[in-house]
Amino acid sequence: MHHAQKLNEVIVKKSQEAKLVLLNMPGPPKNHDANALLQNNQTRPMENSLYQNYPFFADIQVMIFLGFGCLLAFFRHYGFGGMAFNFLIATFTIQWAILVQGFFQFYYDGKIHLGVLNLINAEFACAVVLISFGAVLGKTSPVQLLIMALLEIPVFGVTEWAVVKYLKINDAGGSILIHIFACYFGLGVTFVLYRPSLNEGHPKESTSYQSDLLSVMGTLFLWVFWPSFNSALTFKGDDQHRAILHTFIGLSASTITAFALSSMLSKNGKISMADVQNVTLAGGVTVGASVDMMISPAAAYVLGILGCIACMLGYKYLSPFLARRLRLQDQCGIHNLHGLTGLISSLAGICAILLATEETYGPSLYQTFSHRAPPEGDPLLAELQELIPDLEAGLGRTAREQALFQVAAVFGTIAVAAVGGLLTGVVLKLPYLASPSDEICFDDELFFNVPPDYSCVNDPIVSPARLTE
Amino acid sequence: MHHAQKLNEVIVKKSQEAKLVLLNMPGPPKNHDANALLQNNQTRPMENSLYQNYPFFADIQVMIFLGFGCLLAFFRHYGFGGMAFNFLIATFTIQWAILVQGFFQFYYDGKIHLGVLNLINAEFACAVVLISFGAVLGKTSPVQLLIMALLEIPVFGVTEWAVVKYLKINDAGGSILIHIFACYFGLGVTFVLYRPSLNEGHPKESTSYQSDLLSVMGTLFLWVFWPSFNSALTFKGDDQHRAILHTFIGLSASTITAFALSSMLSKNGKISMADVQNVTLAGGVTVGASVDMMISPAAAYVLGILGCIACMLGYKYLSPFLARRLRLQDQCGIHNLHGLTGLISSLAGICAILLATEETYGPSLYQTFSHRAPPEGDPLLAELQELIPDLEAGLGRTAREQALFQVAAVFGTIAVAAVGGLLTGVVLKLPYLASPSDEICFDDELFFNVPPDYSCVNDPIVSPARLTE
Amino acid sequence: MHHAQKLNEVIVKKSQEAKLVLLNMPGPPKNHDANALLQNNQTRPMENSLYQNYPFFADIQVMIFLGFGCLLAFFRHYGFGGMAFNFLIATFTIQWAILVQGFFQFYYDGKIHLGVLNLINAEFACAVVLISFGAVLGKTSPVQLLIMALLEIPVFGVTEWAVVKYLKINDAGGSILIHIFACYFGLGVTFVLYRPSLNEGHPKESTSYQSDLLSVMGTLFLWVFWPSFNSALTFKGDDQHRAILHTFIGLSASTITAFALSSMLSKNGKISMADVQNVTLAGGVTVGASVDMMISPAAAYVLGILGCIACMLGYKYLSPFLARRLRLQDQCGIHNLHGLTGLISSLAGICAILLATEETYGPSLYQTFSHRAPPEGDPLLAELQELIPDLEAGLGRTAREQALFQVAAVFGTIAVAAVGGLLTGVVLKLPYLASPSDEICFDDELFFNVPPDYSCVNDPIVSPARLTE
Repeated sequence: MHHAQKLNEVIVKKSQEAKLVLLNMPGPPKNHDANALLQNNQTRPMENSLYQNYPFFADIQVMIFLGFGCLLAFFRHYGFGGMAFNFLIATFTIQWAILVQGFFQFYYDGKIHLGVLNLINAEFACAVVLISFGAVLGKTSPVQLLIMALLEIPVFGVTEWAVVKYLKINDAGGSILIHIFACYFGLGVTFVLYRPSLNEGHPKESTSYQSDLLSVMGTLFLWVFWPSFNSALTFKGDDQHRAILHTFIGLSASTITAFALSSMLSKNGKISMADVQNVTLAGGVTVGASVDMMISPAAAYVLGILGCIACMLGYKYLSPFLARRLRLQDQCGIHNLHGLTGLISSLAGICAILLATEETYGPSLYQTFSHRAPPEGDPLLAELQELIPDLEAGLGRTAREQALFQVAAVFGTIAVAAVGGLLTGVVLKLPYLASPSDEICFDDELFFNVPPDYSCVNDPIVSPARLTE
Repeated sequence: MHHAQKLNEVIVKKSQEAKLVLLNMPGPPKNHDANALLQNNQTRPMENSLYQNYPFFADIQVMIFLGFGCLLAFFRHYGFGGMAFNFLIATFTIQWAILVQGFFQFYYDGKIHLGVLNLINAEFACAVVLISFGAVLGKTSPVQLLIMALLEIPVFGVTEWAVVKYLKINDAGGSILIHIFACYFGLGVTFVLYRPSLNEGHPKESTSYQSDLLSVMGTLFLWVFWPSFNSALTFKGDDQHRAILHTFIGLSASTITAFALSSMLSKNGKISMADVQNVTLAGGVTVGASVDMMISPAAAYVLGILGCIACMLGYKYLSPFLARRLRLQDQCGIHNLHGLTGLISSLAGICAILLATEETYGPSLYQTFSHRAPPEGDPLLAELQELIPDLEAGLGRTAREQALFQVAAVFGTIAVAAVGGLLTGVVLKLPYLASPSDEICFDDELFFNVPPDYSCVNDPIVSPARLTE
Repeated sequence: MHHAQKLNEVIVKKSQEAKLVLLNMPGPPKNHDANALLQNNQTRPMENSLYQNYPFFADIQVMIFLGFGCLLAFFRHYGFGGMAFNFLIATFTIQWAILVQGFFQFYYDGKIHLGVLNLINAEFACAVVLISFGAVLGKTSPVQLLIMALLEIPVFGVTEWAVVKYLKINDAGGSILIHIFACYFGLGVTFVLYRPSLNEGHPKESTSYQSDLLSVMGTLFLWVFWPSFNSALTFKGDDQHRAILHTFIGLSASTITAFALSSMLSKNGKISMADVQNVTLAGGVTVGASVDMMISPAAAYVLGILGCIACMLGYKYLSPFLARRLRLQDQCGIHNLHGLTGLISSLAGICAILLATEETYGPSLYQTFSHRAPPEGDPLLAELQELIPDLEAGLGRTAREQALFQVAAVFGTIAVAAVGGLLTGVVLKLPYLASPSDEICFDDELFFNVPPDYSCVNDPIVSPARLTE
């Protein structure tokens, strides 16, 4: 008896301590689901949060490592760089983000608390860095990339923390915090790293038949699992269900539109693989900010088409302009796929917020838009809690107030990201960071031991001169 | 009080309306799981149908986009076509199928209702079109393919609706509705699009080392997730469990057999990659129609072997015969992988139905074979419902009656599919659809902006003539 | 009434029989979840074990077929061999393992019982064979590989059965039973199959640009889903949650370290793709034996780094030494990635066992370390069961006793595996097994009908001589 009693006392004490901490801590749910000590006779193993989060985490893992990895391997002589640097940067970033986000958001009781949910948050931060990476692909050394990740994550972490804690916005798919932040940070970096000679084009800045196929595979991985990305952090139940449907619809709309526009905007009516690789994904971003709301499938479809058109025109007309006039050499066109679409998405989110009514949402309105729920002590809260027992007290914001906070978040994010990117770019210009010279950009040979067939692989023509040497 | 009361009234009214509609509607379960308005204080978010369906949906997504995409990229100069047209056609088809199936099956209360379950249904319809696509791969323009999808989906939708609503068959893995339909539709199309000059072989109608590897990857994606495909629409619980086990066993049996036969039937004893890419999958189709029944692992194994043998012999002897004598140029051999195996599967399904007894299934018999359940009002129904509370009234069919309906479904499906395919083929012969001429079949250059290495990529020999020009 | 009564009687009788069998049978849970007859009005379909196991099974399928398949395709002229033989061997092995493991572990009531859980067990056995395959890649015929699998599985099955039934160790990630066994079995085989001429290097024993990329994709599939592998057979709930977190952390640590060491240990400071493909995965093995314990994220991180260092130094210094001095030609370096890391993991597991206290684990201690639970009849058991109702009686082992059993398992496994491997190697040397001669090792042309571009594909230089012929 004595032994078990003692054990029991330990657990009761620990649990009470943990609960005390929980009560005193605002913010996201606290994770004790991986701690053996805090399991007791009320614990039901299958209700561990693991089982709600792990499937989404696994999908996002595929997107980060295989999706981005293959997509970024599109240069004919920079496949190793695209795929392996993506692997390195992603791994580093996730670890670093666990610490930074942990410090800002999951730190209590003297420790950073860790669960699969935190890994999902860290993978989102990782997506930010990988998007920014797209702007400088092929023109940076791994040391520079690591430093970029090292600096971008804290800037992102602070922004995220401020937006989540103070502005409290609705942005399930991360259009503002992930896509817009990543885009303007990346543009800031590439602005400082401007290389005038690359504006004339670089002999290795092209794809090969195999690299194009590999890159399309990356696109398909991203396309297939994007609904998991956009819905991973929504409320469970109908919110998550809507997020998945809207993302799927948005992506479908933008894919069809991308094929049509690619052929129509090309001189010879042919489809460009670069469009298949990038523009098809625009719809996933444009539905992001309103993905869990009752925007209706039709609106998701329209958002997909709008995002695709903006993205396509961006690649066609805006990117060359930015490169020549504004020193913004955006290697993967992240401003088209993440910037323009992110802005459209934010705008759509604001509209959806302004149009949201109790007639459409029922009392769930106060869950999806949790900051519009009545504050603690408001008698309305108690009434609503009879309808939805789990409803938490909010801030009593009106739709307009919420919309203004969204606007503030967009501009705030752009400003912080751009300044952060510029400063990071300055750091990356420091000497001794092994920045590749202009001639050997987009070239695996600089950083990798390449296989014997490298020198002639993917070469457009087997030069007769070399052969007759 | 007033506010919440009003809200509550709205919800109660809406819910009642929805329930009224539900009561008056026969057919599959009605989906409100993505509608915020219909959530109330009895809603348990984790019981949303999303969580039962989404994992299977995600697996099928990988099959459709990555599995088919890579598998169809096996021609050495048609990798872009295989992968990108698959992407385009799949996306278009899913959208179109949501509307068509929605109109026929999920339309009530003035709206098409949408949930992840409908997306699964639409992806099944998409699989139909992609299989048919295999028959005409490399010989059609994207416009022709889109028109094919545009016409095939309504024919499929009507067939599916008629079979589901009136014939009410057992076909969990879609052997009849998906594989047989897709095969005979595709053969109908390719019959009309017959190109005599291609019977002599085409210089670009061959694979390359890389395209073969990519295609095997596609096979592996299909192989790995096929259990999810065959089990996505079964009853939950033991039925789905059996479907997964049987599919896995059938695939395993056909894979081993395919390797053995490929080596044995080849003149030099070597394995052919085309067999590895296609014949290994035959078992997944042959177990389809009986996949959720108590057929025993041994029967699933035998079905896998039989399907593999039929498929292999089809590729070896039947396909050349069909091409020369019957004008059926079946580019991917869909008649072997989906037609012959589908017929075997249907036959096996009929046997399994005839052999099904209460001794083997217990009262679950009337769930797996839901049309054999006693009809509404039968006293037996009430007794059975004591054993299985969820049991729904059926049609009181005997095993024989059910078997006859299955036979009717097979022949009906073949007839409708073949006629539909022939008519579609006629439409595809209309001018202005950019049909490629015989010389430039299997060639990406016609529809894509190809990278600079395209002209010599994958070429068997670097022609000295061209080099010394 | 009569009919349903009779039915009910059948079920009650069958259920009782089944329960009787269950009561009399020790060992893992008995699986009736795919049997329609044993479902009754208490059955809740969504509680079928399928839904707990299938997501993990699907992830492991991807690892086995796509992960190993792509990873093993790294030789420039042996891509078909790597990918297709992996497919063949995996399929064969899983089937064979279902029978062998079924006979030893899941055989009762005159039948082998089958559920998705058994498939997971069989896939683990499959991983064993595929790891051993790595030691002889490119030097064996498919017949030899099938015989190797045929012999390895029973040796593994007996070892597993003895260790699980008699030694009763903690090894959630399979560091001992999977990685160490596979490594020393493979080394035994390759020792007997020693080919002196290959020590000088073989002209085809190299990678190409495309094969390196494909192989990295395989690594990424393994990396992404490794947490599912290491956690598939742990207790549900917090144990599985920890297993996933620790595996992710271990892999992340070893990936970063691998990139750093690859560059630091190379003469020119460049990264080697072989390291990216292999050494990055070391952390997944090193955390294996203690993956479900409360080792803390920091310890998982350190284990990842240690495993990576050992693995990297093994590739650099130990493998060449073993090949020259000890006749151990280890083609994929499995001794580095699975042997050395497995030993480190076992040692870490022993430390974690010795350090485990009730203060850290609470009463869960007796679940994670189930053999330390008090035996049946011990009054302490009843007290603990008040805290954890599901707790099963154990053996009352102390931490030290458990540690000694772990040591015994390590040495026993190494001994059995090595002897088994040596004997298998002797069998593989029998004539008529189509063993390739030294000249045509690492060459797809021997076993496959290769496409027309094979002879010059991936060749480092297009020989002018051949062109001017």
